[in-house]
Amino acid sequence: MNHPHPDLGLPSPLVKGGLRIVALGGLGEIGRNMTVFETKGKLLIVDCGVLFPEDTQPGIDLILPDFSYIRDRLDDVVGVFLTHGHEDHIGAVPYLLRERGDIAIYGSALTLALVTAKLKEHRISPLTREVREGGHEDVGPFELEFVAVNHSIPDALAVVINTDAGRVLATGDFKMDQLPLDGRITDLRTFARLGEEGVDLFMVDSTNADIPGFTPSEREIMPALNRVIGSTKRRVIVASFSSHVHRVQQVIDTALIHNRKVIFIGRSMVRNMKIAQDMGYLTVPPGIVMDAKDLDSFDDNVVLICTGSQGEPMAALSRMANGDHQIRVGEGDTVILASSLIPGNENSVFRVINELTRFGAKVVHKANAMVHVSGHAAAGELLYCYNIVKPRFVMPIHGEWRHMKANAELAIQSGVPRSNALIIENGVVVDLIDHEAQVVGSVPCGFVYVDGQSIGDITETSLKDRRILGEEGFISVIVVIDSQSGKIVAGPDIHARGFNEDMALFDDVKLKIEKALASAVAEGINGTHQLSQIVRKTVGGWVGGEHRRKPMIVPVVIEV
Amino acid sequence: MNHPHPDLGLPSPLVKGGLRIVALGGLGEIGRNMTVFETKGKLLIVDCGVLFPEDTQPGIDLILPDFSYIRDRLDDVVGVFLTHGHEDHIGAVPYLLRERGDIAIYGSALTLALVTAKLKEHRISPLTREVREGGHEDVGPFELEFVAVNHSIPDALAVVINTDAGRVLATGDFKMDQLPLDGRITDLRTFARLGEEGVDLFMVDSTNADIPGFTPSEREIMPALNRVIGSTKRRVIVASFSSHVHRVQQVIDTALIHNRKVIFIGRSMVRNMKIAQDMGYLTVPPGIVMDAKDLDSFDDNVVLICTGSQGEPMAALSRMANGDHQIRVGEGDTVILASSLIPGNENSVFRVINELTRFGAKVVHKANAMVHVSGHAAAGELLYCYNIVKPRFVMPIHGEWRHMKANAELAIQSGVPRSNALIIENGVVVDLIDHEAQVVGSVPCGFVYVDGQSIGDITETSLKDRRILGEEGFISVIVVIDSQSGKIVAGPDIHARGFNEDMALFDDVKLKIEKALASAVAEGINGTHQLSQIVRKTVGGWVGGEHRRKPMIVPVVIEV
Repeated sequence: MNHPHPDLGLPSPLVKGGLRIVALGGLGEIGRNMTVFETKGKLLIVDCGVLFPEDTQPGIDLILPDFSYIRDRLDDVVGVFLTHGHEDHIGAVPYLLRERGDIAIYGSALTLALVTAKLKEHRISPLTREVREGGHEDVGPFELEFVAVNHSIPDALAVVINTDAGRVLATGDFKMDQLPLDGRITDLRTFARLGEEGVDLFMVDSTNADIPGFTPSEREIMPALNRVIGSTKRRVIVASFSSHVHRVQQVIDTALIHNRKVIFIGRSMVRNMKIAQDMGYLTVPPGIVMDAKDLDSFDDNVVLICTGSQGEPMAALSRMANGDHQIRVGEGDTVILASSLIPGNENSVFRVINELTRFGAKVVHKANAMVHVSGHAAAGELLYCYNIVKPRFVMPIHGEWRHMKANAELAIQSGVPRSNALIIENGVVVDLIDHEAQVVGSVPCGFVYVDGQSIGDITETSLKDRRILGEEGFISVIVVIDSQSGKIVAGPDIHARGFNEDMALFDDVKLKIEKALASAVAEGINGTHQLSQIVRKTVGGWVGGEHRRKPMIVPVVIEV
Repeated sequence: MNHPHPDLGLPSPLVKGGLRIVALGGLGEIGRNMTVFETKGKLLIVDCGVLFPEDTQPGIDLILPDFSYIRDRLDDVVGVFLTHGHEDHIGAVPYLLRERGDIAIYGSALTLALVTAKLKEHRISPLTREVREGGHEDVGPFELEFVAVNHSIPDALAVVINTDAGRVLATGDFKMDQLPLDGRITDLRTFARLGEEGVDLFMVDSTNADIPGFTPSEREIMPALNRVIGSTKRRVIVASFSSHVHRVQQVIDTALIHNRKVIFIGRSMVRNMKIAQDMGYLTVPPGIVMDAKDLDSFDDNVVLICTGSQGEPMAALSRMANGDHQIRVGEGDTVILASSLIPGNENSVFRVINELTRFGAKVVHKANAMVHVSGHAAAGELLYCYNIVKPRFVMPIHGEWRHMKANAELAIQSGVPRSNALIIENGVVVDLIDHEAQVVGSVPCGFVYVDGQSIGDITETSLKDRRILGEEGFISVIVVIDSQSGKIVAGPDIHARGFNEDMALFDDVKLKIEKALASAVAEGINGTHQLSQIVRKTVGGWVGGEHRRKPMIVPVVIEV
């Protein structure tokens, strides 16, 4: 990776009355959003999410923000504010609370309910402080103000951070649906008022900044849902994210129109919809939702709402596609993928679509029907924001480089000076001093991998080994030699996996190894390490020369 | 995978005068197209391409059609007809000719030039027979007729196969650009004449069958190219497939308008454009194309045309993105990805876009400008074909299941009886007898993997091992025991890769292994195999229980 700030060193200590801002995740990537704000010796954290691995990070379960920067200063943390309840904003909270359990968590009612449910699975009871749009809260030296924003989950909030150094407005994830299902629009009147008063640094969601125009309203998928559900002869199966309450609401409403029962499938879907219903975010007419275990008694007059829209192998939809779920998909059924297609998941999702199609189901997805709209503001919406807020400085957040760059260009087009648009990466330190923002250094900030029970033990070296092993396999060669004579007592014993199953292949390299070791010993070379290197070189030369391959070679010479 | 024809066994021998059709690739996948036609004891092969691996086939270079079905009958092969020069239609020809070198290869002039160049790299001189649209050729008992079709490479042909059993029309890859750059449209007048005379089996490209409407004309990208190239301050870099002669033609024409020189970058781009120019498919005004080595002398007034539009790590564009290509991309440059985005390549392509953007380049791609159109007919075009040809039977080819299914539904909508639309997989045998097509069985037909020098040696077992190794790494445990006493002489010696680099982690499992082996020996268990299994079980239990991980475990017990 290229470093856009190659000369940055550690920053000087923060000047008195200044505000320091360091993103530990979410810049240059879509996920693990986490930003640390510091003033008067205290730290405020906004969001604490996870990132899902891509193909270059094989076997990894989750990626966390790197807490190193704050690890020695956990006692200075006055609170964590969560903008909304998505995994990429709340998923790392359990890992942070393992390090200090009594950090107060601030957020809207739904956000706190979702993070509390997640923490319960980790056996953690958090200290929560509910806040709401229009509200103010002093958190240590930070004066916070909360602003309603619209997103693909209810109850999302932007946050205003007022300090002596100046004012920051951070949007979190948002879009500007003008006719949202719950009537709760992104509060541009407050954005306007804040702009009038002056916003020094505007931290803005970049996810869709490179998409021209405007994200359609959530409501606009209703006609397609209605048409598809209305024309399906047998069952309808809708896959969606399990936190997309309004999407599910529309499916329920449509099911009702067509006199179909609704069944939630998948642990997180069942859990989240119960929370949403209990709290009043989801309206479920009596008698419409049935339990999955009662499914047999219903013929085809159902809509199943399930997880697995990204082709996740263990989720309900993938198991249906593989034919190993209790629900057998067949002729006359329609499957709706009411979801985005996250880059990297295409092969998995298309595999699911192919298999469902082979079973005879019709599969409807965003490429062939209007069954999904994004949760993020596109370029047109962002321009409205820049023109209303008229910030002095801009820092694009929540995006890969291409998204942040596109977002910065929008700010610049709207009048922000080019030098005031800060495109930076995780760990880069920005100080806001007397209403002026400036890059002042950077702190170490890496990837922290969760793999099974291990957190942070898997390093880039391990991942590089996995990539080699996964592409090429390995050849292990074991030779036992007599410690006195140097003669081979047992072996060469060759084990290979992922390389070639024909063990006869190795007969000629065994001879080469024996010869190489014999002449090394004759030359007076000894010691298991040096002899191992000879084995490695011999096998490496053979496999590269004769097979044009580069498997991992694991030579072991043991003296007895 | 689910098998839609689970009860098919081997077919009975072909009846006299019948035509047998077996696809060895290209059904249920995009790639390695190859179909075998048999009549009167002779075999005709149409296309012989490769498939590129996906993430579940790690480390694989190429996937070939499975030649097993024809391996014992190579002497009966009367010829190979290649519809056009793309890798997924010609890439496996070298591997077929290794098995019998003097099979005659039929194709259009450009197709033969491209396959000959490819074969030269494999040191094979093929026996070629040039054919052209409107031409006829008797190839053994097959009367062939060739029909011009339009595609994303010049000189593509559909083929009519006339036999005593009936007539087959196979489209190859095609679309119906009504204003192609070379004026060579898909010959619907001939399709119509064939339809009037009667087409028994219509084998139709399915790639875009699930896309509604019509594929735009290649010409329609010209305005975007013109706008982008015209507004770029410094260099323009265009990445495209190296066989897309008309795309390159438009880039050259646009470069000329803006007085820019053109430089071809990348081995296959240079080679193919030379072939295309020499043969008259590409028109290059004198003096416009410069050699890459002369680049220094030109400032910014250039258009570089290169490979790597899919983010292939070794291609020119990826190397520019990584900063290790002689061409340093920077501020003021524009990169145009004038190409499709093949599913599975998203992460690689977005990585390239992000890195180029970080260097300051503007990146234009099909998501933000009209710089690419597909080479395949969409649903609207396919309906024209079905209505003009009015075939008795239809067999969708060239597609995943979802594409073939969508294609079959179009045929059915246009009037083909549902029972006459054959959606089948590779290896399924269709007999055409007296103008009636019927599925009569299936033959074994697998994946043949090319990996380095090995062809067909890598099995599903190796791939499964690679997937485990790539996700979880391995732990190898070596114990040397005395063959008399069963006592441990050396070890347990533990080597782990891709699992965890902290070797101290293994201290407690070493003790467990020693104990387990000692008690096994005390119980009279001996033999290296049995003792190895005890080691495997001990390590497996420990790693699963304490680490929630499942690395590959390679236990080796050696007696001395």
